[in-house]
Amino acid sequence: MTKSVAILGASGYTGAELVRLLAGHPEIEIAALSAERKAGLEMAAVFPHLRHMQLPRLARIEEIDFTGIDLCFCALPHATSQEVISGLPRDLKIVDLSADFRLRDPAAYERWYGRPHSAPEMQKEAVYGLTEFYREEIRAARLVAGTGCNAATGLYSLLPPLMAQAIDPDEIILDLKCGVSGAGRALKENLLHAELSEGWQPYAVGGAHRHLGEFDQELSKAAGQEVSVQFTPHLIPGNRGILASVYVRGEARDIHAAMTATYRDEPFLTVLPMGEVPSTHHVRGSNHVHVGVVQERRGGRATIYTVLDNLAKGSSGQALQNANLMLGLEETTGLTLAPVFP
Amino acid sequence: MTKSVAILGASGYTGAELVRLLAGHPEIEIAALSAERKAGLEMAAVFPHLRHMQLPRLARIEEIDFTGIDLCFCALPHATSQEVISGLPRDLKIVDLSADFRLRDPAAYERWYGRPHSAPEMQKEAVYGLTEFYREEIRAARLVAGTGCNAATGLYSLLPPLMAQAIDPDEIILDLKCGVSGAGRALKENLLHAELSEGWQPYAVGGAHRHLGEFDQELSKAAGQEVSVQFTPHLIPGNRGILASVYVRGEARDIHAAMTATYRDEPFLTVLPMGEVPSTHHVRGSNHVHVGVVQERRGGRATIYTVLDNLAKGSSGQALQNANLMLGLEETTGLTLAPVFP
Amino acid sequence: MTKSVAILGASGYTGAELVRLLAGHPEIEIAALSAERKAGLEMAAVFPHLRHMQLPRLARIEEIDFTGIDLCFCALPHATSQEVISGLPRDLKIVDLSADFRLRDPAAYERWYGRPHSAPEMQKEAVYGLTEFYREEIRAARLVAGTGCNAATGLYSLLPPLMAQAIDPDEIILDLKCGVSGAGRALKENLLHAELSEGWQPYAVGGAHRHLGEFDQELSKAAGQEVSVQFTPHLIPGNRGILASVYVRGEARDIHAAMTATYRDEPFLTVLPMGEVPSTHHVRGSNHVHVGVVQERRGGRATIYTVLDNLAKGSSGQALQNANLMLGLEETTGLTLAPVFP
Amino acid sequence: MTKSVAILGASGYTGAELVRLLAGHPEIEIAALSAERKAGLEMAAVFPHLRHMQLPRLARIEEIDFTGIDLCFCALPHATSQEVISGLPRDLKIVDLSADFRLRDPAAYERWYGRPHSAPEMQKEAVYGLTEFYREEIRAARLVAGTGCNAATGLYSLLPPLMAQAIDPDEIILDLKCGVSGAGRALKENLLHAELSEGWQPYAVGGAHRHLGEFDQELSKAAGQEVSVQFTPHLIPGNRGILASVYVRGEARDIHAAMTATYRDEPFLTVLPMGEVPSTHHVRGSNHVHVGVVQERRGGRATIYTVLDNLAKGSSGQALQNANLMLGLEETTGLTLAPVFP
Repeated sequence: MTKSVAILGASGYTGAELVRLLAGHPEIEIAALSAERKAGLEMAAVFPHLRHMQLPRLARIEEIDFTGIDLCFCALPHATSQEVISGLPRDLKIVDLSADFRLRDPAAYERWYGRPHSAPEMQKEAVYGLTEFYREEIRAARLVAGTGCNAATGLYSLLPPLMAQAIDPDEIILDLKCGVSGAGRALKENLLHAELSEGWQPYAVGGAHRHLGEFDQELSKAAGQEVSVQFTPHLIPGNRGILASVYVRGEARDIHAAMTATYRDEPFLTVLPMGEVPSTHHVRGSNHVHVGVVQERRGGRATIYTVLDNLAKGSSGQALQNANLMLGLEETTGLTLAPVFP
Repeated sequence: MTKSVAILGASGYTGAELVRLLAGHPEIEIAALSAERKAGLEMAAVFPHLRHMQLPRLARIEEIDFTGIDLCFCALPHATSQEVISGLPRDLKIVDLSADFRLRDPAAYERWYGRPHSAPEMQKEAVYGLTEFYREEIRAARLVAGTGCNAATGLYSLLPPLMAQAIDPDEIILDLKCGVSGAGRALKENLLHAELSEGWQPYAVGGAHRHLGEFDQELSKAAGQEVSVQFTPHLIPGNRGILASVYVRGEARDIHAAMTATYRDEPFLTVLPMGEVPSTHHVRGSNHVHVGVVQERRGGRATIYTVLDNLAKGSSGQALQNANLMLGLEETTGLTLAPVFP
Repeated sequence: MTKSVAILGASGYTGAELVRLLAGHPEIEIAALSAERKAGLEMAAVFPHLRHMQLPRLARIEEIDFTGIDLCFCALPHATSQEVISGLPRDLKIVDLSADFRLRDPAAYERWYGRPHSAPEMQKEAVYGLTEFYREEIRAARLVAGTGCNAATGLYSLLPPLMAQAIDPDEIILDLKCGVSGAGRALKENLLHAELSEGWQPYAVGGAHRHLGEFDQELSKAAGQEVSVQFTPHLIPGNRGILASVYVRGEARDIHAAMTATYRDEPFLTVLPMGEVPSTHHVRGSNHVHVGVVQERRGGRATIYTVLDNLAKGSSGQALQNANLMLGLEETTGLTLAPVFP
Repeated sequence: MTKSVAILGASGYTGAELVRLLAGHPEIEIAALSAERKAGLEMAAVFPHLRHMQLPRLARIEEIDFTGIDLCFCALPHATSQEVISGLPRDLKIVDLSADFRLRDPAAYERWYGRPHSAPEMQKEAVYGLTEFYREEIRAARLVAGTGCNAATGLYSLLPPLMAQAIDPDEIILDLKCGVSGAGRALKENLLHAELSEGWQPYAVGGAHRHLGEFDQELSKAAGQEVSVQFTPHLIPGNRGILASVYVRGEARDIHAAMTATYRDEPFLTVLPMGEVPSTHHVRGSNHVHVGVVQERRGGRATIYTVLDNLAKGSSGQALQNANLMLGLEETTGLTLAPVFP
């Protein structure tokens, strides 16, 4: 039987990506779309590329009747999300794409986001949405917190070797190269084409990026000890894609073995043959993740290279994969699109 | 029952795009892939973005057993295509993506391509693959000639108003802005990123572009008189997309009415409200075409703006749409992907 | 003796481009820079690429002492410009980069800009800044109005053949392909990298673009009759450059002869050999203009292709060229930078 | 008195960049240009952006009369360079832009380049062209070996703190993000716009990049012990620019102090205020280098971020700076162009 969903915050890129993916999903229909400032408009006016679809008109959240809706995707800004979600019907399943429910520890939330959480009890209830590592919890969850797109890319690189004790948890450096759409549809000078095209730079340097909260939480849990990674994102003049270059201590063959063992049966994770490296080109527009492992010339040192599409597997694709699990559907439905190249 | 297809010339962009589209087609399976110089390789070595698919190894054409294959896509270079196709089994349905069978007149072929046609009898048999205008012939055809991507963009702009006598056939100027992938995977200096990014220019100027042969043939037929348009393509620093700006004489409201009447029930053609204009952004990666009509400030003059994705609706999407018809399948199967934005 | 200049509106792209060009000018020093919202900041904070230069701190206009300043560049928004300029000292030479003084007719100004001009007497005094056609007037002028960048590209294409009566003034279509920086540093959704990269589209269609006021004024004057061209700009995913494809009636050889005769001794205008076409790549970052003329396959029809860099020759380069004339300096000083390729 | 130079290998990007820079040099004239396969052509046919310059026709090397030529730039491919240079007149000063004379140790050359050096005695004579660290030797040199563009970016990051013993020489990781033009004008599939735009990836991973030979040589010399860094370049979809993110052990304030002390009086090296980071946008088209230093959240760890334009300061700009020194001219002549932004 067809399931019914709402998307709150449908005027941003992750909202539009959800609609794009759901366009090919045979068992889910979109019952409601919200966008506060653009309420009243057709989706085609906000995203003309979705013009061919039959979609509900954009509404304000309070205008939505949640009766009969099985699951709600929240693609709202951070902080807004927790306010809205705590007011939604208790029997509604929720996949949140914001950062609001990623951290289980209220103190960690406050440290990284600069304010106390307004719904700490829901914070505890939320399941971290990294599907491959929380699949059973997600299947049973009412509220799933989508991961940060940078965090996902780093965690896919690090969790298998860390759990297999194939790398030193104290010596991890993550250098991420991130496409522009990860910054959202915000009107900022540095996101203008004229300012961004043909140049690149680091940002949120020196341990300032909020996704470090997720890294600390998930890596410490996996390692069974406190892990404090070094992480710098870089803004690259391309629209979709994250490439993580992860510098670690360990033997490449052990790391590769851990990757292969963990991801062997995963539908969206591909471990490349030893020594081969991935490109963001090869996952663009898809839910796929490619992971490569390379031995460095000095013994005991290796580099892990991981790519995904930040809007797909990094947020909206992951969200749909989790929603499928929560709704009792086949996990990969609507997500088998091949990457778009060139 | 599942249909079986072969793709000859699978190492080019249109071959890869066919595989991408077929990845989501529930009733067609890929039985064989050819690539002369790359024979013996896995498709993943040539196009790593297709690495997740189970695909036959690339073979030389003579190694392929066509028994049991229902339809063959030929994505071979011009001239090679006619040689290969004339040697294929007579009961095999064929969709040719080259220019070899687009022109029905052997003299016109020789004029535009600089050599006599080697299979003139098949040239006569071939049906021109502009689906919306040759649907019934395509359904019954053995050999369908895919249109030029530029020609398709221009013909979608011009055929409805020309057939409705809403424009002057003697006063047509086509200014096309074309993405890079239309030039294929050829190793040419002007297609290097460093030479192409951040700049733009006309090419094949002064009536030199071979797609003029198609324009002459199809527009003259539609107008019932000889039509000789003016056409200049321009190379734009983007990978997918063609925008046609078509300058005509006529009243915008009549042109818009002709467009609406012709395309009303077409699944992939959208006529924008009067005065609105399309963007290649909004059809990228999809089989959709958007058409806009604008009145100019001087009476009796209007401009038609049409966009499509040259690799999808401009070649491989069109090819699959035609293959669906030829195989008795639902015409839109495998082609309902939403555009990718951003 | 070194001349002293001020730049009002130094936080936009044309302001920054003026500073870049003046960096290599041995006879002009920058005495003052203004930016209302960013007053008090160092230029390096607004444009870090100018960090190596010794520049005055950004000030509010009223804080600037114009004593000893020979010439003032106004790179302010339209409408603001006329307010500010009418309050500047009467003995200050001014090069205005806004649209405020381009139209000599107050009624035309009001029609295109939607409000009456607040300094109509200065409007009459202003000289139109297309250097090659108004050189002597500019040399003697107190106030020069920089042309629109689109207008300049079109006028370089059309003035020589129109004045030589080599083309029909009633049959002119301008199709312009414009880089992003022409839209300025405005925070608009459609100028974001994610919305603009990899796609293209027309804008200001149907005779709505304000530069038509300039075309009407200058072309009518050149032709000695009222001329009403058709003009559509298109937004291209590149930062600098305008390509005009100008469709005209006339013989290519006559047009080419007119171009050659007019531009023979011009330092920045290059007429390509007959039949060759230019690329925006080849003028980027420079004050150069390349013009090509092509015969169409139908007799009596030709196309003119012209390229320039909108920030250089299209605005700030032109402004400096005019300032050199007004200050009695060698016209080309500071403007001989070669284009940047790749 | 004007100096006279030849450029061998003028049909590549570094050759063209030399011509661009020399266009603004008042004391050097270009007496000869060579290009083997394009001999006989005008430079304008190979690089139309240089069309406005008066330049000698491209010749074969053996056609060039070196009498009266003061200095020769060799922008030839590796291996070819050593053959050609060993045949040039002994009294000709030479700036080589290839890799052929960068390594002083014949064994190291053979290890990294896979063949013995054919002119080992000249290898010993050559001075490494990193101007700021070899200025006096360069001034006196007959043969200067231009550095690798990646090597330059890394060495500017590492030499000051290494010489000041502010970082641990055993714990250095270089993650470089490199623009496309660094790969030259070679016709390779992965350099096509359609393959490169909108995606990014590592290359030459696992210690395979030849610039490691330069790092080993120069860093070991500076540290007074053998240094073996870890270095991965990544190909970024932009044409000019290298960003080095260099992960080191040490205190940021000590590193920053070493940078400031070393580069205080350097005309092209800017050390950003502590904690600020550079962007390749801000040096594009110029000879400038921006260096930033950031403290990481774990004590004793810091990151150095350095940017330059690979075609300018990374090769041709450096070459001209060295040529100025060798010719007894002011070091910065012709190199004071401001960066081009946007």
